[in-house]
Amino acid sequence: MTGFSGDDSWALVIGRRVFLLTDSRYTEQALKECPSCKVVERSGDMVVETAKIIARSKRVKTIGVEDTTSVAVYDAIRRKVSVKVKKVSNVVEQVRTIKSADEAAFIRKAGKIADASLESALEQIAIGITESQLAGAIEFEMRKRGAAVSFDTIAAFGANSSRAHHSPGKRKLKKRDTILIDFGVRCNGYCSDKTRCFVVGKPTKTYKKAYDAVADAQAAGIKAVANGVSCAEIDAIARGVIENAGFIPYGHGLGHGLGLEVHEMPVVGKGRREKLIAGQVITIEPGIYIDGKFGIRIEDDIFVTKTGCKILSRSRKSPALRTLL
Amino acid sequence: MTGFSGDDSWALVIGRRVFLLTDSRYTEQALKECPSCKVVERSGDMVVETAKIIARSKRVKTIGVEDTTSVAVYDAIRRKVSVKVKKVSNVVEQVRTIKSADEAAFIRKAGKIADASLESALEQIAIGITESQLAGAIEFEMRKRGAAVSFDTIAAFGANSSRAHHSPGKRKLKKRDTILIDFGVRCNGYCSDKTRCFVVGKPTKTYKKAYDAVADAQAAGIKAVANGVSCAEIDAIARGVIENAGFIPYGHGLGHGLGLEVHEMPVVGKGRREKLIAGQVITIEPGIYIDGKFGIRIEDDIFVTKTGCKILSRSRKSPALRTLL
Repeated sequence: MTGFSGDDSWALVIGRRVFLLTDSRYTEQALKECPSCKVVERSGDMVVETAKIIARSKRVKTIGVEDTTSVAVYDAIRRKVSVKVKKVSNVVEQVRTIKSADEAAFIRKAGKIADASLESALEQIAIGITESQLAGAIEFEMRKRGAAVSFDTIAAFGANSSRAHHSPGKRKLKKRDTILIDFGVRCNGYCSDKTRCFVVGKPTKTYKKAYDAVADAQAAGIKAVANGVSCAEIDAIARGVIENAGFIPYGHGLGHGLGLEVHEMPVVGKGRREKLIAGQVITIEPGIYIDGKFGIRIEDDIFVTKTGCKILSRSRKSPALRTLL
Repeated sequence: MTGFSGDDSWALVIGRRVFLLTDSRYTEQALKECPSCKVVERSGDMVVETAKIIARSKRVKTIGVEDTTSVAVYDAIRRKVSVKVKKVSNVVEQVRTIKSADEAAFIRKAGKIADASLESALEQIAIGITESQLAGAIEFEMRKRGAAVSFDTIAAFGANSSRAHHSPGKRKLKKRDTILIDFGVRCNGYCSDKTRCFVVGKPTKTYKKAYDAVADAQAAGIKAVANGVSCAEIDAIARGVIENAGFIPYGHGLGHGLGLEVHEMPVVGKGRREKLIAGQVITIEPGIYIDGKFGIRIEDDIFVTKTGCKILSRSRKSPALRTLL
């Protein structure tokens, strides 16, 4: 929210002023990226530097510290700072959950670059390629387009795809095989997040049936998305489609908010009574995972509007199973 | 330390038993990776699941929670758990700081893959290539070798390299230019971390002089590494070499431990009185950064031994400035 893209730095908001506390590694970058902040290059301890600024601001009586802060840092702040310290929850996250048109456009743009990168990588695919090589090829294509990766690309072949967050390894692509790719690009800081599945050779009947169930569940979930609908309700709709098709549905949530981080508020899942708000961007990603056999997940990025939603990541008339090679 | 390579999971150590609490996304992976753990697939809240296990273990009177845990989670644990809760600091980190021969070998192997990847990527370099493309090419080469990236590769051209942690962007390589590359590979979970600088065309006299100062500082720093030497002392030696050459030394620390994470204990820097211990692996990475002109950093991974050290990342008789193209 400051525009800063480095690490190891704190923002201290006092009234209308934002102090960005950083160190010499990031000073030049902070000055360039954060014209509206007062950039402070700390030479010593972060907490001590923070305490100094607070001590100089006579009007400050209480400071709020995000409760995502570690216990060690929180305790250090309480020890060093002379004013009252309070825990606060989801202050930044709440502001960030609603996206402006610009922010949604960045996510859409990230999705477009991701799509183009996937297409190029799929053209290079061959029997014998490893998961790691395929993931690497996709990420290289993103880089060629000047984009950064929003999270480590998942490429899983065959039974490996039944682990929803498999790390790509040395498993080679076979003549009859299945592929799951979960990938995203970061554009101006904003993330896309998408999953697609493919088959090599002829899919088994079970795979085909499961794929259709996931595709139908995703379509039903997306159709239900609108301002005011509860997260749990959307999850239940998608889950129901999969159960009705005779499969055990995904153990994870149906989706999650995304923006500057790949996982933001809200969580779209069981027991989540929060209602969707126009301006949120969420993923819808149902799946079916059969241990030792295969996993299928289809994921798109959805912009919540007042009357429904827009799919930000529309690529290839998606939920149609595509055969590679 | 459990062998688990997934995310969003907790380890609960009770006597000699280790409970690995995870969710359905990681169950299969956890069972495969952690044969010595009792894998628990949680269906609800992590804290509630933890409290249940503790409640069943009658002999537990107190639990220790790492102080890197967030305030929110720590508070939730205190609320839900029926036994006494204590903060503990650096328990895992202390164990991890000393590497076995196997662990050091993984770091060396990671370094070798990183070197080979850099060499292949440098062969593809051409005037007009962007920082992002170069970083992407290096990472793709790592992937081709079946390895994962240990952190986002930094490729910085010209003045961009004066920001020690620059994100590779659209800046194109010129006919007379300088390059800084900070990169690493993860092998069996263990990270390498190395920085190299290159010139395109003829370097300026200042660049050449600064490069030699950094190389000399690194050599002096490495020479000083041995069991029992204080971290501050090694930092002061390297810093002194740069100051004597008439430059302002790096604002960051001289180095850091590395292993399962890219940054582990100890911190090798000013005011760090901790003494090095045989078995630690640290980076030695002095630098000179001249705003708007260039940055130079040379970094290697060093294994501390009883009588001195071994360089794990020996590639090209390094601190000799190499001209590309």
